[in-house]
Amino acid sequence: MVRWQPGATERLSVAALELFEEHGYDQTTVAEIAERAGVTERTFYRHFPDKREVLFAGSGQLADRVSAAVAAEPEGARPSLLVDAALAGLAASFPDERRSYARRRQARLDAEPALRERELLKLATLKATLVEALVARGASDPAATMTAEAALSVFHVAFLRWIGEGEQRGMAELQREALGELRAALGGANPGADAGR
Amino acid sequence: MVRWQPGATERLSVAALELFEEHGYDQTTVAEIAERAGVTERTFYRHFPDKREVLFAGSGQLADRVSAAVAAEPEGARPSLLVDAALAGLAASFPDERRSYARRRQARLDAEPALRERELLKLATLKATLVEALVARGASDPAATMTAEAALSVFHVAFLRWIGEGEQRGMAELQREALGELRAALGGANPGADAGR
Repeated sequence: MVRWQPGATERLSVAALELFEEHGYDQTTVAEIAERAGVTERTFYRHFPDKREVLFAGSGQLADRVSAAVAAEPEGARPSLLVDAALAGLAASFPDERRSYARRRQARLDAEPALRERELLKLATLKATLVEALVARGASDPAATMTAEAALSVFHVAFLRWIGEGEQRGMAELQREALGELRAALGGANPGADAGR
Repeated sequence: MVRWQPGATERLSVAALELFEEHGYDQTTVAEIAERAGVTERTFYRHFPDKREVLFAGSGQLADRVSAAVAAEPEGARPSLLVDAALAGLAASFPDERRSYARRRQARLDAEPALRERELLKLATLKATLVEALVARGASDPAATMTAEAALSVFHVAFLRWIGEGEQRGMAELQREALGELRAALGGANPGADAGR
């Protein structure tokens, strides 16, 4: 029987981040991560398929949350409500108490090509999940892909600001700001809003 | 002295596409492409660094055109006018007489990973060029990246429709349609426009 240790995923993620910061990604072994988290190497592999994955513990949950948020909108909801729902689902995965960890984690991802590669794969999976959720709600491709890309661009800009030095505002507010900027850049929404930029 | 043969780029692109269709990408050599185009292998390498590049003859010009279109907008132009200018620059590279070639070319790109890889690199370069052009006009990153991504998503959706079986409308019109769809999906623009979708 596979034994799932409660809290082990979280402990392994934190231990890995610390070790990557202290010694670098390449110099850190799975055995060392497991040891610092107080579990066996076998337990590590019950939670993560490989070392690259250890900083992406929440990625499956993130995609599920986005998918569920889009699916939960009432029948006949306009596309813009589906986008709002997707963004709300994303924001829910980035509460303020995670900001400090997210900031340190992103610095490791940016520094290490193997982690950056895994991040790109996760983002591609997230996009595919969102496209699928939009199509299930009646959007047609390739328009659904365009909408998903725009929503994830908004999320990404907001996320970069959220982890920015000294930023205090939450993800939901930063996503609203970024969405407003994108609307203005695409015209039509509120023609005066971007005057003077 | 390097001699540039007028029309050779075009002839090489067409010869390569024909040979890729007839024998496959891997089975076609640079020598065969040059022969069918009526030039020497040396001439091929004056025009293209490698076989992968032969279907991307216009990519540099495309990026230049987008960059110039954004730069040509009057001072103080709103972000949405810069996006419109970029899209107009893109549409100008896809006149209707190129549609049949573009359709056949895209089928080869989709079929051959080496060409698909080069296409992704060209798209990344195009995005970087557009971001740079927007930043030069006063936009700040990461908002400029978000705007460039949205503009290129609009372009991409329009392009896929443009090469679609039986499509008669031009790129400029298809881009306007896609832009309208994206605005509706992001809300705010014209709340009733997407009703019933």
